[in-house]
Formats: sequence, structure tokens, C-alpha cells
Amino acid sequence: MEQKLILISNDDGITAPGIEALVNCMKPLGRVVVVAPDSPQSGMGHAITMNHPLRLEKVNQFDDVEAYQCSGTPADCVKLAVDKVMHRRPDLLVSGINHGSNSSINVIYSGTMSAAMEGAIEGINAIGFSLNDYNFDANFEAAAHYANLIARQVLENGLIAGTLLNVNIPRLSLNKIKGIKICRQAKAKWVEEFDERIDPHKRKYYWLTGKFVNTDHGEDTDEWALANGYVSVVPTQFDLTAHYAIATINSWNF
Amino acid sequence: MEQKLILISNDDGITAPGIEALVNCMKPLGRVVVVAPDSPQSGMGHAITMNHPLRLEKVNQFDDVEAYQCSGTPADCVKLAVDKVMHRRPDLLVSGINHGSNSSINVIYSGTMSAAMEGAIEGINAIGFSLNDYNFDANFEAAAHYANLIARQVLENGLIAGTLLNVNIPRLSLNKIKGIKICRQAKAKWVEEFDERIDPHKRKYYWLTGKFVNTDHGEDTDEWALANGYVSVVPTQFDLTAHYAIATINSWNF
Repeated sequence: MEQKLILISNDDGITAPGIEALVNCMKPLGRVVVVAPDSPQSGMGHAITMNHPLRLEKVNQFDDVEAYQCSGTPADCVKLAVDKVMHRRPDLLVSGINHGSNSSINVIYSGTMSAAMEGAIEGINAIGFSLNDYNFDANFEAAAHYANLIARQVLENGLIAGTLLNVNIPRLSLNKIKGIKICRQAKAKWVEEFDERIDPHKRKYYWLTGKFVNTDHGEDTDEWALANGYVSVVPTQFDLTAHYAIATINSWNF
Repeated sequence: MEQKLILISNDDGITAPGIEALVNCMKPLGRVVVVAPDSPQSGMGHAITMNHPLRLEKVNQFDDVEAYQCSGTPADCVKLAVDKVMHRRPDLLVSGINHGSNSSINVIYSGTMSAAMEGAIEGINAIGFSLNDYNFDANFEAAAHYANLIARQVLENGLIAGTLLNVNIPRLSLNKIKGIKICRQAKAKWVEEFDERIDPHKRKYYWLTGKFVNTDHGEDTDEWALANGYVSVVPTQFDLTAHYAIATINSWNF
């Protein structure tokens, strides 16, 4: 049987501990190729680079693993990998492991998920992994364990066309995690509170800060799963049509 | 009756002809405030700026209209506007008019739509408008006519919570456009064809190019509407959950 081909990317950049943990836990599942940003790209959403050329450079970041750093966004990395690096369509694309959660509305802003989504658009089974811990020296042991487990199931079962997985792992040791919950995205949002400051030239500037507000009390959400010690798995799609709203708008008097 | 308050943003930047057309066709509907990027942000997806401070500067771009340029992304503009510029929640947020279509999968990469989506996340009625013409000196007359028409309907009827509208206008004169179709997002994608070049220092670099491929033959899609002379209106959502896939994944053997 041909070896599985696994493409890995992320948004924290190729030197982040999270991607190293992901590379190590994917190696037992097949041949791994890494194409990741050469610098952190958090909050890049699904940005792509159209007005600048991209660089792609082979690096020895992970010993025996073929790896490239790219000057672009996570979505750029996947596009370049598929067109210029991979000699055949990968069996799996995994992105992460992100330093910080991408649950609920964060999926919209997430570079980690945009890499996975780009893979899914290309027709590749794709998963984004995020650990609910922003520390650079976070412990990725439990996250890596579940990444391996979930990736094996995706390789075995395949995903429904047009879907990918958004996986978030709670900040708990492996023996404290209660298991996996298949969830929906919680209806939560950030309430912005820009921090206004004055520079030495007496001009105002603003830092984006905010408070995460979850008003969704459902026990079938990713936020509930994480808060209750479970790994959350949200099947995610890039068809953004609100099909249920079509009839209502058709009744308007244009 | 209190005057309607309308926030306007875009991704082509505050000096683009498309936003000027949008400002002019919204003025009859209420009090307009503009907060738009100070430079073009096309392809920025739903990027937000976390690692740099933002600037916000009052400008006289549109005569009697209160207007600000912001150093951030379209999503940043809307966040800043809501937190620091608007004294109350706007009744409507409109984004565009984009120079180029944002139909089908382009909604994912679109800065125009990310501004509208940020508005919808904030609970504001929001619409992104795009004209299927990339020219800087495109004719926005028909697009402005339909933007006014659709905005009036949204102000009158309101949108279902959690939804926004993705409106694309064909490159046709007003009397050639057949009307409005409420659509779903077509299942189409870009096939990347990176253009590989060599710089004067003998190092490779890549330009993102691609071919748009639509394999969706449905006559209820935005691509069909545009190709057949209609304005496409796709109700769009930011709950990315593929609800229909939850049962399948629950049957896996974790």
C-alpha cells in the first residue's frame, strides 16, 4: 500500500513549538511535508498575497522531514505547496498546532483554519488543530495525542466533500481530558475595547483588545466542550450560504 | 423619525471610485459615516491587526460626509468604527463597491465581505457590494442603483440575525440588467498556477495567478445569475458549522 502523504502548515510560523509537535505526531501516519510561513501570521484570516511575489525556501527545520518556509500567509503556503511542492495531491492536510484556541467565532479570524480551509477547497481532507494555551512553551503532549487519533480517523473514513475539521484541545494534561465531542460552533463574539494611546509626536494610536463574550448556553457547542474538559471537533464548511434565509429575502418587494 | 445611520467601508481603500459611488447612493437613505482603509487591502480575507497599533485619521474625502481613513484591514476599520467613531449602533453597514466580483468562493478571500461580516458579527445589518469589473475607471452607475434599492429593502425589512448579504452586480448598463436573483454561493474554485520567475540575484520568486473553475451547473447560483445578466444576492453566514456532517463523524470509532 502506498504511504500516506501529509502536508503540514500553520500560522504561528515554521519555528513555533506547535508545528514541531504536529510534525512529530504525524510522522507515524505517513510521509510528511511541511510548507509554513517564515514568520507569525496570527489573525490573518483567509488573506492571500496578490500584490507581492512570494518566496519559498527549503529549510532543515525538522531533521529528516522535507520542509519549506514561505514568505506568504497560511493560505498562500497551501496554494504554493499544492502547485509547486507536492508531486501528488496529499491524502491529508493538517494545520497547527495553534498556540491559542480557534473555537467559536475565532474560526473566522484564524490563519490556522484558513490553511486547513484552503486544503479543503482544493479537495484535500483537512484539519486545523489548536491548543487552548497561548504560551510559547505550552505543553503539546495531549494535543499531539489527539491530533494523531483524529488524523488517523480522517485518513480511514475521509471527510464529506466541502467540509474540514476545526479541532480545539483544552489546556489539560492527557489523563484529565475526558474525550472528544463533535460540536457546533458556539454563537460567541469579541467585544472590542481599543486601547487608545498617544505617541511621542502627540498623535493617537490604537491597540486592538477585546473581551470574549459567549451568550450561547448550548451544551453541543465547542465552547461548552472545552470548558468541560473535552476536545471539540467542529465540522466546518466554506459554503457560507445561509440557505434558510433565501425564502425570506425572496418575499421582499424589490 | 430618527435619521438612519449608515457606516461605509471597503477594501480597495478610501480613495477608490467604488466607495465614492457607494457614499453617493447611500446619502439619500440617512446619515453616512465612512471608515475605510488608507490603502488597498484586496485579498485580505478576514485579517485583523493584533501585533501593530492602528492609526485613524479624519479626512475630507467626501465633502460633507464624516470620513476617516484607518491603517488597518477592512475588519479593523469596522471594529474601530463601532468602538471609537460611531456614537450609536449603525442601522446599516455597507461595504464596497468592490472593483471586481466576490461571487462564489471569492467570498472567503474578500476584504469587502470581511468588513460586512464584521458588521454582521456586531449585530448590524450588513451588505457587501461588488461590481464584476476590475477596471479602476469602471462604470458604477448600475451598481449604485441596485445598492440603493437593496439597502432600502434591508433597512425596511431587516436581516435575520447571523446573516448578511453578498451582492454582486454584472458588468452591464442599467437597462441591460434583468433584475435581482436571490442565490446560493456557487461551488467554484481557483486552480492555482503560480508564475515562477528568477530575480537579479538568481533566486526564485512566485506570483499568485490562477484560473477560475466553476463546475456547478445549478441555475440557483450567484455565478449563473451574473452570467445571465442578473444582480446576485447571496444570504451569507458566519456560522461555519457543517451541521449535516455531525452525525457522520459521531459514528467514527474514536
